[in-house]
Amino acid sequence: MTPAAGPLYQQLASHYGQAIEKNTLRTGMRMPSVRELMRRHRISLSTALQTLRLLEERGWLEARPRVGYFVRGIAVPPLEEVADADLSAPLEAVAGAHPFAGINERISVLVESARRADVKVDLGGATPGPELFDTAWLNKTAIALLREQPNLLAQSRSTATTHPDFQAAMALRALDAGIRVAPHQVLATVGNTEAMHLALTAVCQPGDVVAVESPTYYGLLQGVESLGLKTLEIPCSQASGISLEALDLAVRTQPRLRAVVVVPDLQMPLGTLMPDAQKAALAAFCRTHDLALVEDDSYRPFVEANERPRPIKSWDTSGHVVYCESLNKTLAPGLRQGWMSAGRWHERIQMLKFAQSRNTPAFSQLLAARWVGAPAFERHLQRLRPRLRVQREQAAQAIARHFPAGTRLRLPPGGLSLWVQLPAGVRSSVLFREALREGIRIAPGAMFSNTDRYEHFIRVSCAQAFTEQTDEAYRVLGRLAAAQAAV
Amino acid sequence: MTPAAGPLYQQLASHYGQAIEKNTLRTGMRMPSVRELMRRHRISLSTALQTLRLLEERGWLEARPRVGYFVRGIAVPPLEEVADADLSAPLEAVAGAHPFAGINERISVLVESARRADVKVDLGGATPGPELFDTAWLNKTAIALLREQPNLLAQSRSTATTHPDFQAAMALRALDAGIRVAPHQVLATVGNTEAMHLALTAVCQPGDVVAVESPTYYGLLQGVESLGLKTLEIPCSQASGISLEALDLAVRTQPRLRAVVVVPDLQMPLGTLMPDAQKAALAAFCRTHDLALVEDDSYRPFVEANERPRPIKSWDTSGHVVYCESLNKTLAPGLRQGWMSAGRWHERIQMLKFAQSRNTPAFSQLLAARWVGAPAFERHLQRLRPRLRVQREQAAQAIARHFPAGTRLRLPPGGLSLWVQLPAGVRSSVLFREALREGIRIAPGAMFSNTDRYEHFIRVSCAQAFTEQTDEAYRVLGRLAAAQAAV
Repeated sequence: MTPAAGPLYQQLASHYGQAIEKNTLRTGMRMPSVRELMRRHRISLSTALQTLRLLEERGWLEARPRVGYFVRGIAVPPLEEVADADLSAPLEAVAGAHPFAGINERISVLVESARRADVKVDLGGATPGPELFDTAWLNKTAIALLREQPNLLAQSRSTATTHPDFQAAMALRALDAGIRVAPHQVLATVGNTEAMHLALTAVCQPGDVVAVESPTYYGLLQGVESLGLKTLEIPCSQASGISLEALDLAVRTQPRLRAVVVVPDLQMPLGTLMPDAQKAALAAFCRTHDLALVEDDSYRPFVEANERPRPIKSWDTSGHVVYCESLNKTLAPGLRQGWMSAGRWHERIQMLKFAQSRNTPAFSQLLAARWVGAPAFERHLQRLRPRLRVQREQAAQAIARHFPAGTRLRLPPGGLSLWVQLPAGVRSSVLFREALREGIRIAPGAMFSNTDRYEHFIRVSCAQAFTEQTDEAYRVLGRLAAAQAAV
Repeated sequence: MTPAAGPLYQQLASHYGQAIEKNTLRTGMRMPSVRELMRRHRISLSTALQTLRLLEERGWLEARPRVGYFVRGIAVPPLEEVADADLSAPLEAVAGAHPFAGINERISVLVESARRADVKVDLGGATPGPELFDTAWLNKTAIALLREQPNLLAQSRSTATTHPDFQAAMALRALDAGIRVAPHQVLATVGNTEAMHLALTAVCQPGDVVAVESPTYYGLLQGVESLGLKTLEIPCSQASGISLEALDLAVRTQPRLRAVVVVPDLQMPLGTLMPDAQKAALAAFCRTHDLALVEDDSYRPFVEANERPRPIKSWDTSGHVVYCESLNKTLAPGLRQGWMSAGRWHERIQMLKFAQSRNTPAFSQLLAARWVGAPAFERHLQRLRPRLRVQREQAAQAIARHFPAGTRLRLPPGGLSLWVQLPAGVRSSVLFREALREGIRIAPGAMFSNTDRYEHFIRVSCAQAFTEQTDEAYRVLGRLAAAQAAV
């Protein structure tokens, strides 16, 4: 990950860092001693010591006095956890005066300023870098596909929005997750963004209300706004996700509430895992009140657990759950391949998809079908999870090291980012602008709500390899935050 | 095209047919005589005569008594031309009671029944078959691209909806068409369907009115309806396209009219070429009345002319023209690649695209950029046009041969389909169902309007190679139409 350049002790630290990352050296194992390192690599005492100290500093090793260095276990940084908000009531429903004047405007300004900046360290977008994918396998499969089906790129598939091979592969994938979906109920989408857009278009009329988690992924807020719908932000507990108490109040006070959108596993940005009991209760709640429950299941493959959690869809007995998965972050970001199974709204969504963008390219669908069905995909995820865990811990440690007192975070049980609460007085929108000037991109809290209640939060991505430069970026961020806190 | 199988005279006819198609034997050239054929191919007199008669029957040759056989010029079938409708007034504005209850429902039923049928001859979808594309070149370029950019499929491009290489290539393409578009004004889309959807979403509010050509492409009617907008059908002249007289009346009677959508070159399904004066007038009209003019320019590359017509966008001085092009039918249907340049609505449409589907795959964009910029693309179109011309003529001749008296059509100056008027008493929705039972798919007139005024029309595709089986399909269609006409 860290390029093998620079002084010898840095090269050696990278070498061992990678071995830990790849689980060749596992948590709790004893690191070779100073003497062993000297002999093995024919290095001086001082180089051996520098190597071990750097590995310790980067969070790879912990020193046990008079025993030696050991590979670190889960790093819990010495930071307080983020506290839950009041879970008893929903926030005010928000609708822009105009469908493009609220969050869309805000996000566009942020995205545009990031695009124009000379970003050197991108902690903004939480998508794994190309080095975390099996690109050799991907390209080999793509080339094989083009050779086997020479007409693939030139073939029109005007009557079918989704390729039957993709439908079959996703139906199998669903079965694996405990969901029964017939192949014909699988609809290919352009990532998850289109899936959400189709789901909300099918379920709502302009002016209707959509309940979302607070904080939530900004793309969802944009989608809701661009459809002329109202967003109702429902507070989330970090232990169990969306507050059913607040949702219950919302049903009674908002007659035009039509849909609830959730990311039950590794909620974005909180990283919460919704417990099974809560999933079952939420499914029952939506059934009882005839609400569409739109489930974004794109992060479940990143959960650190021996047993994979079950999606809410597996508790759906009435077709109220619209299940969506993006394969962007697990399979290949460049394909923009997603899929959905829309329960009782299937016919209407198929119709809308046909009217709004027709079919997605068969090339991407077939590549996704082959990849997702292959054992290589599970192996890829098994390699990816511990690497991301290490990257999350490295980021958390860097924050603990560099950020001012009063900074809080909770290490999530998986995923691609951290949600960080800054000390009182630090405004993340200011931090965003100042950091960008230093070539560092972060996601300020304002992106995750229509309110300003997350102004003192940032989301940082752990999807890219943690390098010297990343550590330096956290140091700069910490300095900027401290300067604001001191004012 | 016709497979080289069957009796010897059929093989020879195919051989010469292909030579004519490829312009090796050009219009007006004298065909080898009976004696020459006998000597050249060592065949009997009867085989030589059968070969020439089959070529004549298929429309490749014409016999000049006592002189010999000549390669045919443009075949004008002995059919009357379709008459124009009343051009003085728009039709009633139509809005479904519900955004999914009108044309979307109708089209879905048709598409679904075609999908379920065992279609042997598809005259429904007007996209060229894979044999009309340079698939070897496409695949070679795709594989080279994956080898040169091994991270292409695994790379996330979250802040940019359009790849800069694609923007540069399309800006050059636009320049070639007489349009000045800066690279940053190019937005990649999922075919034209998404472009239309984005344009209308940006320009209109639910309940607004969109003027469309009548008849028009059904996908547009679906898109308008699915956005909760009203369609106002404006009659078209076959000589000059959309009626400005009717449009003028529409502006005065429809205060919520916001946009006009046209296919100025090779209007779908009429095949009309809008004259330059009309294009300039329409651009000025929309500027004067502050209407968005959405221009679908996907068919211009199929125009049979030495000089390519200019898009309306080239007369746009105020940014009122939203220019859209799908590369589906010219480049590769499997990529679903389109683009747009949205004039004064650019910022808003970029925002909407980001909110509704993010970026389209870089793989497709880069492949399109290479292809469209290469001389091979122009060569491909130069080969494609005469092949399509021959296929249109073959279809027109088959209709003239097999359809009942009273059938009318006008050979369009290019394109992928024919618009056929059936005799009084023939209902194309019935013909559609009956033909499907025989394994033949056509597009009934009802797909091209929210009214039933095209119930006695069909659109037939000429995008697939014309074979014995195609001829047989026209024979069956003619028989079915005649049976209806006789009742």
